[in-house]
Amino acid sequence: MTQYWVEILPFGKKQRAAESENLHHLIRGCGIPLASPCGGRGKCGKCHITLIKGSFQESKPSATEKAYIQPEDLARGVRLACQATLNGSVKIHVPPESLARDISLGTTGPETTIRPFPAIKKYYSAMTGPSFHDLKPDTERLVTSLQKQGLRPRHVSPSILALLPDTLRESGWGVTATIQDKHNIIDVETGDCRDDCYGLAIDLGTTKIGGSLVDLITGKRVTVFGDANPQIPYGEDVLSRIHYAAKGDEERKFLQKTVINSINQLILEACRKSNIDTRHIYEATLVGNSAMHHLFLGISTVHLAESPYVPAVKGPLDIRARDLGLNINSEGNIHTLPLITGFVGSDCLAGVLATGMYKEKKMCLLLDIGTNTEVVLGNRDRMVACSCASGPAFEGAHIKHGMKAAKGAIECVGIDKQSNKIYTQTIRDAAPAGLCGSGIIDCVAEMCRSNIIDDQGMFTQESDFASVRRSAEGMWELVIAQNEKSGQDIVVTQQDVNEIQLSKAAVLTGISILMQELHVTPDQIEKVYIAGAFGSTLNPINAKRIGMIPDIPVERIKSTGNTAMTGAQMALISTRSRRKSQRVSKQLEYLELATHPDFQSFFVNSLRFPKK
Amino acid sequence: MTQYWVEILPFGKKQRAAESENLHHLIRGCGIPLASPCGGRGKCGKCHITLIKGSFQESKPSATEKAYIQPEDLARGVRLACQATLNGSVKIHVPPESLARDISLGTTGPETTIRPFPAIKKYYSAMTGPSFHDLKPDTERLVTSLQKQGLRPRHVSPSILALLPDTLRESGWGVTATIQDKHNIIDVETGDCRDDCYGLAIDLGTTKIGGSLVDLITGKRVTVFGDANPQIPYGEDVLSRIHYAAKGDEERKFLQKTVINSINQLILEACRKSNIDTRHIYEATLVGNSAMHHLFLGISTVHLAESPYVPAVKGPLDIRARDLGLNINSEGNIHTLPLITGFVGSDCLAGVLATGMYKEKKMCLLLDIGTNTEVVLGNRDRMVACSCASGPAFEGAHIKHGMKAAKGAIECVGIDKQSNKIYTQTIRDAAPAGLCGSGIIDCVAEMCRSNIIDDQGMFTQESDFASVRRSAEGMWELVIAQNEKSGQDIVVTQQDVNEIQLSKAAVLTGISILMQELHVTPDQIEKVYIAGAFGSTLNPINAKRIGMIPDIPVERIKSTGNTAMTGAQMALISTRSRRKSQRVSKQLEYLELATHPDFQSFFVNSLRFPKK
Repeated sequence: MTQYWVEILPFGKKQRAAESENLHHLIRGCGIPLASPCGGRGKCGKCHITLIKGSFQESKPSATEKAYIQPEDLARGVRLACQATLNGSVKIHVPPESLARDISLGTTGPETTIRPFPAIKKYYSAMTGPSFHDLKPDTERLVTSLQKQGLRPRHVSPSILALLPDTLRESGWGVTATIQDKHNIIDVETGDCRDDCYGLAIDLGTTKIGGSLVDLITGKRVTVFGDANPQIPYGEDVLSRIHYAAKGDEERKFLQKTVINSINQLILEACRKSNIDTRHIYEATLVGNSAMHHLFLGISTVHLAESPYVPAVKGPLDIRARDLGLNINSEGNIHTLPLITGFVGSDCLAGVLATGMYKEKKMCLLLDIGTNTEVVLGNRDRMVACSCASGPAFEGAHIKHGMKAAKGAIECVGIDKQSNKIYTQTIRDAAPAGLCGSGIIDCVAEMCRSNIIDDQGMFTQESDFASVRRSAEGMWELVIAQNEKSGQDIVVTQQDVNEIQLSKAAVLTGISILMQELHVTPDQIEKVYIAGAFGSTLNPINAKRIGMIPDIPVERIKSTGNTAMTGAQMALISTRSRRKSQRVSKQLEYLELATHPDFQSFFVNSLRFPKK
Repeated sequence: MTQYWVEILPFGKKQRAAESENLHHLIRGCGIPLASPCGGRGKCGKCHITLIKGSFQESKPSATEKAYIQPEDLARGVRLACQATLNGSVKIHVPPESLARDISLGTTGPETTIRPFPAIKKYYSAMTGPSFHDLKPDTERLVTSLQKQGLRPRHVSPSILALLPDTLRESGWGVTATIQDKHNIIDVETGDCRDDCYGLAIDLGTTKIGGSLVDLITGKRVTVFGDANPQIPYGEDVLSRIHYAAKGDEERKFLQKTVINSINQLILEACRKSNIDTRHIYEATLVGNSAMHHLFLGISTVHLAESPYVPAVKGPLDIRARDLGLNINSEGNIHTLPLITGFVGSDCLAGVLATGMYKEKKMCLLLDIGTNTEVVLGNRDRMVACSCASGPAFEGAHIKHGMKAAKGAIECVGIDKQSNKIYTQTIRDAAPAGLCGSGIIDCVAEMCRSNIIDDQGMFTQESDFASVRRSAEGMWELVIAQNEKSGQDIVVTQQDVNEIQLSKAAVLTGISILMQELHVTPDQIEKVYIAGAFGSTLNPINAKRIGMIPDIPVERIKSTGNTAMTGAQMALISTRSRRKSQRVSKQLEYLELATHPDFQSFFVNSLRFPKK
């Protein structure tokens, strides 16, 4: 596992003057992806580092550090990077647990089977050169020649005019024209290269960037790619990132640049791998939550984090690649799918498009689980969406031994009460290091099933299970494994159970309020889609067992993987799907939970774990 | 007058490796605007310099130098910069006559009186901010508010989204929106600034850039500006400039950049003078000949100089300011008026628009005189244009003592045969240095009138005028003044008369062929417009006296100044005029003289000077 031993010099690796001496920022300035869910504000206690040599200005641990670091760790020099300021050069160790990058990437979503109707088409055209009897200018000559093929091009992009005269003559008056939206000629190439016609579908998540390089003729993927969102060091969750961007124009533009650079790098690698020229990528579609959408476009996000949380823009946008600096054909188009509201992004809309629930007769429920969980309930007659503040517990945060879904994370837990044994399975079968999101849910589900906790989420007093114990502080906890390296027990505490309980209650509250709005009972819901990277690892039975979703027959629940990516691909290869996405976005109603009069009572009712 | 003494070091001031050691290019590399009608190809003999210290690789004058430099000048170290290669460091003197920049700018054309219908309008809009009961995104809120004023905006430019949320909130939800073409919101500003709405009309000539900063609300000029075209050092005439641009992509882009930088500088100065923010310039219209149009847009021009001389594009173009790097509002639009052919540019079309001949019942003739003279004959029923290779003699080139219309140039000549006197008038009443275009025409007209030359353009043997003499080489010449500085006589030679004769014949041939095409006799032509910077200095009587135009009553001939600029301004302030310019461009027929079967016979007939 990646870890770093690094020497930091004062004024050495400055990123920004104002923050130059804060260790947290200096470490990131060195390119080390230090974990930072709170954005370096001392709110999450995740950026543990060990001081090896030198000293900090704060020679004594702060109250924050005492709250997040065990006394024995404090004694051996463990500190929080965000609390320390340099006092001269230091040598520190950054342990793997404090790194943000080692995350497994979610699936890229199922391949779509829809028929391609791309906005981009390429045509070969042979023509006769000019003479004194035919003085048509070059553009007119090309347009006329394409018209003979039944096409109706009306406009030649000014930027391709520069070399058009040379291209036409060098080719001996036989060229391939790339036509966008039936009317705009956006590229002209020598000879016949109609087959080289590609597009990109991009799913820009807070944590991950996923992409597919797609053949626009067949509509199929050529290759998929993905990486961590490079904005993570500037705020791991949406709010910290908005907080960072709000510092000023420079910071906002920097976040935009950093994500576009990263996508450009991924494009280059994908093209190299597939032997494709970036010039032949003519279009990209992008989906993401509203904040990622805004940051990608360089739009101010501060008001997304202020009541009443309205986005700057909601509708679809078409932007030229060169205006954004995206490394595809410079005249290429970047289409961002519409947002629904500040809290329900185009990724959710893409999920609605990919699952096809907008055209279903049957009542459908779509969940895209994350720190904010988007819920859509409905069918072709009416669809309502809401956003639930489910918090980061599902992703392993705020959980005592929670961690990202990385190597060594426990993802499956089995409790055998009779033999008094607990079985665990870790990612890549590595030695257990903690619990990832699906692991903690699996464990809580097992704890419900085994009566270790009751329907209120409390450790049952009568539990005689050997692994249940009281911690030194007197809190109940369940020991599920041992961290071989540290020798520490990996436990699930009463507090952890309550975190999951609050998260699942938030989701269930959203679903319940939507069901009330649509006058739907659980048995009327015939299809449940659990989407998102996390959704693909979540066991639907567990989702039901912990009461995150209502009592719906398990066979109706389907884990659909990253439907956002699939939806983005559909909008890429088919203008029909693109138009559909716009219709759906207008059709999809948004229900604001924060101001709903029944929110409190639904929430209290949703806290309960279902009885077996 | 500007002159330079400069020390040139080998490898010192390289501009381009391949040309590094040629003195001509080295001098220009120093930023000295050395005259170069032929582009440094040894064809014009204008780049005289004097060697003060050091030596050239060519220690002896070349045949070219001997042809262009007087023996006594050769003896004192005068050389042609284009013929010399460095041999080590040299010190040279560049005399004022060898500089290209000191040119007086033509008029900017008459102010237009048409009613403004600009493509750009600004609207103030006050709205209510969002709440949980009104979650409209910012763009939708703005659009809805504008709709309440009866507007139909459909599109918000993605680039203005970045700061839209902040602008709306900072303004307390009262902003001014700039709307382009009724539907596109291209700028949003805090508060009410509807009055700040400007545009630019640009006339991009081979020699000069002229511009008007125009108030789009009143349609009137705020200020006018002008400067030499900074591309002059890279070829003074169109062909040499195309030749330079054809060297490669880099050179073509360099020419584009240099003219755009120069326009940007003029914009800055005009804005500073008028206290206007460049952000408030929302549109620019541009006219120019086809080569200048292409070079401004960065389009390859090499094929404009190759038979059959077709342009890359003919129709009007709309390009965003930021795509070209023009320093107006970055979302502003640059509209280039349509070209007619490779030889008849949008400046000629703008003249047709400005004179209004396209809607006249009367038969009209428009001449835009220059190295190429564009001729348009017709009325609202039919208009035909042609381009005549009139050569540079009208501008004082290829004339023994010809010079640009700069200080000291003789612009008026009066011959009083009885008193045996010649009267001259110079620009700014300076000591005479040579003859500018209108001066040489005036002189030739006077020579006709005074019978110094006959209708074949030959010095009449019987002429007993004292100032007529034979040169040392035995050629007839007329002494019209003395260059006080050099002590040399300023003369008009038999050769000079023949140059003017060829030039005027070229124009008359064009007119005659158009008249034949339209079945028009001279007396049917009811209006003659002489346009262009040169046209405004040309005495219409002289144009008729030397037989450049047919025998049309003088009162029908009007010198209209720079109608290209007026036409550009009309297209700027009125979308109706813009649409008209497109209709006219389609309506205006082009007649190719080069392949016309009667060209030769018409030309021979046109050489004759009219009898009094």
